[in-house]
Amino acid sequence: MILYNKGTENFANFLITEDSFNEMDLGKTESIMCQGNGYMCIRGYNEEDYPKKNATTLIAGTFNRAMENEVTELPNISDTFSMEILIDNKRFFLTENNVIDYDKTLNLKTGELTRSFKYKTADNTIKFLMKRFVSAANVHLGVSHIEITPLEKEASIKLISGIDNRTTNSGECHLIDNVRRFYEKQFAYTHVITNQSRIDIHINAAHQIFMDNVLIDILPAPKMSRRTIYAEYKLKVAKGSTLTIEKYVSYYTSKDNKMVAHPNPSMSYEELKEEIKIGYDNLLQQSINALDEKLWDNNYIKITSTDDFNQLGINYAMYHMFVMTPAHDNRMNIGAKGLSGQGYKGHTFWDTEVFLLPRFIVQNPKVARSLLEYRYLGLEGARRKAKENGYNGAMFPWEAADPEIGEVTPKYNGVNVYTGEQEKVITGDIEIHIVADVAFGVYLYKQFTEDEEFMNKYGYEIIFETAKFWDSRLEYSAKDKQYHINDVIGPDEYTEHINDNAYTNYLAKWNIEYALNCYTDLAKNNQEVLQKVDQKTKISNFIDDMKEKSPKIYIPEPDNELIIDQDTTYRTLEEIDLTKYKASSLVASISKDYGMAQISKMKVSKQADIMVLFLLFGEKWSAKVKKANFDYYEPFCLHDSSLSLSTYAILANDIGYQEYASELFRKALLIDIGPEMHSCDEGVHAASYGGIWQCIIYGFAGLRMIGGKLHINPKLPKEIYNIEFNMYYLGQKLHLNVSNDKLTIENLGEEKVSQIFVRGQEIVLDRNRTIEIV
Amino acid sequence: MILYNKGTENFANFLITEDSFNEMDLGKTESIMCQGNGYMCIRGYNEEDYPKKNATTLIAGTFNRAMENEVTELPNISDTFSMEILIDNKRFFLTENNVIDYDKTLNLKTGELTRSFKYKTADNTIKFLMKRFVSAANVHLGVSHIEITPLEKEASIKLISGIDNRTTNSGECHLIDNVRRFYEKQFAYTHVITNQSRIDIHINAAHQIFMDNVLIDILPAPKMSRRTIYAEYKLKVAKGSTLTIEKYVSYYTSKDNKMVAHPNPSMSYEELKEEIKIGYDNLLQQSINALDEKLWDNNYIKITSTDDFNQLGINYAMYHMFVMTPAHDNRMNIGAKGLSGQGYKGHTFWDTEVFLLPRFIVQNPKVARSLLEYRYLGLEGARRKAKENGYNGAMFPWEAADPEIGEVTPKYNGVNVYTGEQEKVITGDIEIHIVADVAFGVYLYKQFTEDEEFMNKYGYEIIFETAKFWDSRLEYSAKDKQYHINDVIGPDEYTEHINDNAYTNYLAKWNIEYALNCYTDLAKNNQEVLQKVDQKTKISNFIDDMKEKSPKIYIPEPDNELIIDQDTTYRTLEEIDLTKYKASSLVASISKDYGMAQISKMKVSKQADIMVLFLLFGEKWSAKVKKANFDYYEPFCLHDSSLSLSTYAILANDIGYQEYASELFRKALLIDIGPEMHSCDEGVHAASYGGIWQCIIYGFAGLRMIGGKLHINPKLPKEIYNIEFNMYYLGQKLHLNVSNDKLTIENLGEEKVSQIFVRGQEIVLDRNRTIEIV
Repeated sequence: MILYNKGTENFANFLITEDSFNEMDLGKTESIMCQGNGYMCIRGYNEEDYPKKNATTLIAGTFNRAMENEVTELPNISDTFSMEILIDNKRFFLTENNVIDYDKTLNLKTGELTRSFKYKTADNTIKFLMKRFVSAANVHLGVSHIEITPLEKEASIKLISGIDNRTTNSGECHLIDNVRRFYEKQFAYTHVITNQSRIDIHINAAHQIFMDNVLIDILPAPKMSRRTIYAEYKLKVAKGSTLTIEKYVSYYTSKDNKMVAHPNPSMSYEELKEEIKIGYDNLLQQSINALDEKLWDNNYIKITSTDDFNQLGINYAMYHMFVMTPAHDNRMNIGAKGLSGQGYKGHTFWDTEVFLLPRFIVQNPKVARSLLEYRYLGLEGARRKAKENGYNGAMFPWEAADPEIGEVTPKYNGVNVYTGEQEKVITGDIEIHIVADVAFGVYLYKQFTEDEEFMNKYGYEIIFETAKFWDSRLEYSAKDKQYHINDVIGPDEYTEHINDNAYTNYLAKWNIEYALNCYTDLAKNNQEVLQKVDQKTKISNFIDDMKEKSPKIYIPEPDNELIIDQDTTYRTLEEIDLTKYKASSLVASISKDYGMAQISKMKVSKQADIMVLFLLFGEKWSAKVKKANFDYYEPFCLHDSSLSLSTYAILANDIGYQEYASELFRKALLIDIGPEMHSCDEGVHAASYGGIWQCIIYGFAGLRMIGGKLHINPKLPKEIYNIEFNMYYLGQKLHLNVSNDKLTIENLGEEKVSQIFVRGQEIVLDRNRTIEIV
Repeated sequence: MILYNKGTENFANFLITEDSFNEMDLGKTESIMCQGNGYMCIRGYNEEDYPKKNATTLIAGTFNRAMENEVTELPNISDTFSMEILIDNKRFFLTENNVIDYDKTLNLKTGELTRSFKYKTADNTIKFLMKRFVSAANVHLGVSHIEITPLEKEASIKLISGIDNRTTNSGECHLIDNVRRFYEKQFAYTHVITNQSRIDIHINAAHQIFMDNVLIDILPAPKMSRRTIYAEYKLKVAKGSTLTIEKYVSYYTSKDNKMVAHPNPSMSYEELKEEIKIGYDNLLQQSINALDEKLWDNNYIKITSTDDFNQLGINYAMYHMFVMTPAHDNRMNIGAKGLSGQGYKGHTFWDTEVFLLPRFIVQNPKVARSLLEYRYLGLEGARRKAKENGYNGAMFPWEAADPEIGEVTPKYNGVNVYTGEQEKVITGDIEIHIVADVAFGVYLYKQFTEDEEFMNKYGYEIIFETAKFWDSRLEYSAKDKQYHINDVIGPDEYTEHINDNAYTNYLAKWNIEYALNCYTDLAKNNQEVLQKVDQKTKISNFIDDMKEKSPKIYIPEPDNELIIDQDTTYRTLEEIDLTKYKASSLVASISKDYGMAQISKMKVSKQADIMVLFLLFGEKWSAKVKKANFDYYEPFCLHDSSLSLSTYAILANDIGYQEYASELFRKALLIDIGPEMHSCDEGVHAASYGGIWQCIIYGFAGLRMIGGKLHINPKLPKEIYNIEFNMYYLGQKLHLNVSNDKLTIENLGEEKVSQIFVRGQEIVLDRNRTIEIV
């Protein structure tokens, strides 16, 4: 199986293709070719079954806790795109030996997934064309179109297709099977209910059958067994004739904003009937138009380079960031695997604020605001978690689902290879930098947008509550008369129970100081808001304490060799030969040899730690310090998190390691679409797409927010000539065209824009004006 | 796929073989080749995966109700016999094209399941031998032995094998995944808990790896993902060398009598360690010995006939009746599909008393007693159901699971093809003949055993409580001054909401009369017991009422043409052309054209109805009446229940339709092992095996209990020369050798036996004596 950029005139750099079939690799295309619209997402699984096929359909925000010993997760909703096709009474499925001219392609521009191939049976060759999409226009709708053409002789085709409620999350069942029935003998309908969160889900499926493009009037035989409802069609297809099956499916839930209490469950089937009248081609065009409007027209990033793969890579990342983001509902956020698979249970991590949010802040600030409002809705759970742990303020959960629920990190993970025992997961208890990461997200949004309405309503409250948490979390040491933060996990999760993690301490200090600044600003400029927020947060009561403590928070400084301690013990840990693991194309290969208890005692990093600090607050350290730390820490880093490569790539670019930056960027592009066939079986690496975006926009195009001002210092690698994109800054839409020797900014907004510094020089640009900086 | 009787010297008529592979037919061998011991049963599924593979493991009595809208059922327990095998990094699985010399054989005598075949890869041929058994000696134990021999060149083998807790019942998850871990780096252990009934289940799995029969010292790589724990082995096997994998698995539950509170969960792994030391061959021999002791030594029925298939058929039935029967625990009974599949959810129906119990009463009365004690334990639930429905006494549930729970019939079934709506299941409400069927089981047991201890402790209470139910259920009609039973379903379930079903009315009357007899007997002979039972049942208060009503219960009599009304409307129903459905090899083919509401209005029967009455109380009607009714009803009967053919076969034999009897008997033998490949996908037809037994022993050998005395009137069809078997009568073990012209009875018991009537002549036989009647 090779994935490549099959350029065609219309869709150059928009096609992801699998050009040979290997059933060992199903998970790959299921994940990377998933289709969705932020409301729901259906994996790019094949219609026909295979033992390892993972037919997962996720609907954002439908979290449910199915059982004891489990945490809430996105349930795998009933399967509708699967079909059983029998050809002359034999089940149709592919092996490496029975298929020729195989092509499975996702068109990132149109959102359409296409499979075409010739299928060899004992005595016939059958041509297949299978196309489908999940609509960007009507987010509830999916449509599938299948053409079957026997080439050598007549074939009898049996189709068993409908709705399968047997879907589980690795055997965990979430859905109460409430109603299964047909309307008008052909519209399959099912009503399922999540067993704990009590979300009603209404699912419909219906077929249209054509012979040589003529709709034929045929009723299916109804077929029901436990938790399934199928329509069965039996058809003879003459040699050279084409049987076309179109399947229309729809999903509605009681969590849908416009359908909180569905007046009539059958309404959803009536709606599907209307869609069917429109037909596949027209519905697809509607979806393409909507996708252009929502994504490509405004957010397309054009890269001119020696290798089209760079363009494909960012197109791919942009597609997925659209599919995974529930932009329609602020009760929902982005999961670590988006909506593309069951990994990480649909939970939201710091990945959103630190890796994905910048893409939305810069290119789609409305969506960014919705994602931050989600954190605001999570304040209640965060306050509860703080209280339960003996702290003040808001202790945001390491893993979040429904915002009001609070912490949802599972308690156990894999098995320790030495003891045989299950390993505890402690990130939910002590990986507390998430608290400041959320505050940082709010801060960054404010810098780019100056959205005071957001800050007044939501932002200040988050800033104050997170600062209160840190203020109570600090531990005073009489020895050095400083405040410390002990027993945490930093971004590098291979070191547990560490003290004074540089990243955590720095962000905690920044969080408190930023709260103090906000307080001072509000006191000066907006007493009304301050009083309102103070009523809720009692921040005034903490200001003196924060002022007293914040200067005394311990921040590790560069030593003689300019190295900053990642934490108090990292540099004393035992060094082992990491060659094998650094060279491994597999992620976390070290865990096959060691348990977490062992790894914790070795000088080895899972991912960028101090480098993230350099990325977020780059202006605070000299290039020399960054370089010294890059040189020291990178050799110990296995990049076992998908969050690591892009951070290191940007830093490498910053400090002048441009070739290495290109290499790391390339690796980041390949995290999911590269040759490692099982890296994304459980779903794509959502944050890595934000990382790819950051490499291009933060890294190569050189956008960075420094001291509340936008700085642009382009530093394109030699293979990239030009980067062109739209962005928003302080409410104005700008078009940027960036190369190393020339930068063009066009103000497409309604008002003048200023406070942009290109290579240190401030730019002021009236509306409808373009400026070219050579 | 052909199933045939592959006779060999040692195991003639004990082998069921599939001689070609077709993945469409997996369910067949999974069900008919299931292995078990009454404690647990593992379907005969293939180790390697296929989309339609149904890897079900059931443990008797572990009922659980997983979710709302569901009823309690036997959960599909974690899978241990499945394994993933990769050959040169490709998943091993069969297609029709890559396998030669295929043979899958269940040896009914030894209980061992064997698969042997040669598997063709692109560049190699691999010889496979796969053997396994579930022990009859240690009921918790299963062992699998797999030999892999590359014939053309070296092969690299990867084995991924362990315990899979992702098993569900059609997507319904029952098991809380509590602990998964390794002991000593190679013993996989898991602890799951049924989510509602809170049964702890401890499962262990461990491997031994041999190369050319030499045990090799190798530790597996541990592999855990959600709800799974696997050992992974990677091995190179030279051309001509044989890799042997042995897998030892065990299951224990907190419902086990000897393990109600397991002192230490790891104990089960220690036990498995001991078994591993004994090894596959010796453990198999222990199991064979136990199976002989528990089944074949005493219960083998030897048939001499023109066609060995008759012998195979009864061996097959006897094997399954052993596997499915939880003889070890009176809290458990036999499910409609035994333990062979998820069909009917493991529930117990009238199938036990009317179809299966005679086999145990006659050949294994201890087991029969345990099955009846189960009903005694069900009295509480039956009393509750009666009360809820406004009746007295015990209204036994149409479907039963844990005895104390009472009625567990599901509320909905399939979909009505006309309305599209789900169809209600009303058997649990109105198929009340089960109440008398249970009483009849007690009666029959008493006739054969005179087990007064059982009657005193359990039997009389059941008889009185069931009689009280009928007494309160009767409906008086002022019009004819008789008592009627309206709005029921009789044995023929295609007629719903009928009045005065002959079978139901007759058994109700009999039940009351038998209670009156018992009361009179006890009053005369055993006041102590009567007082004890009266305290519990207050039966004395009902005796007068019963005496008044019982003579006035309406019993339909033969009309002028000797036909007895099955119910008040059946003979007035619309006749339709049934040719198509009578000829169909599929069961319930009529339901593809009509919904239950329509079928209810047609003169068509699912199964024997009045014929069952003729079977239970044959002496009450003349051969002429039986013949007239046979001739009338059989043409309308589709035999859509597996309970039908054997009843009609015995009746046909009784009334002299011997060729038709043979034909029906043959069809009954073929219900599961015949050419219809999907008849038993959801599990075997448990009651049909009792039916086969009854055809041979009740039908051909001619044993019948008439008026409390054992009558033997052999009537062998011409193709069967001789039937030889052991039985118990009044506590004495007898050996019978039956042919049409000679009957030999040997008294193997401790005491004299009498009250046996051979062709009307009473036999009295001292211990150790043999009598020959010509």
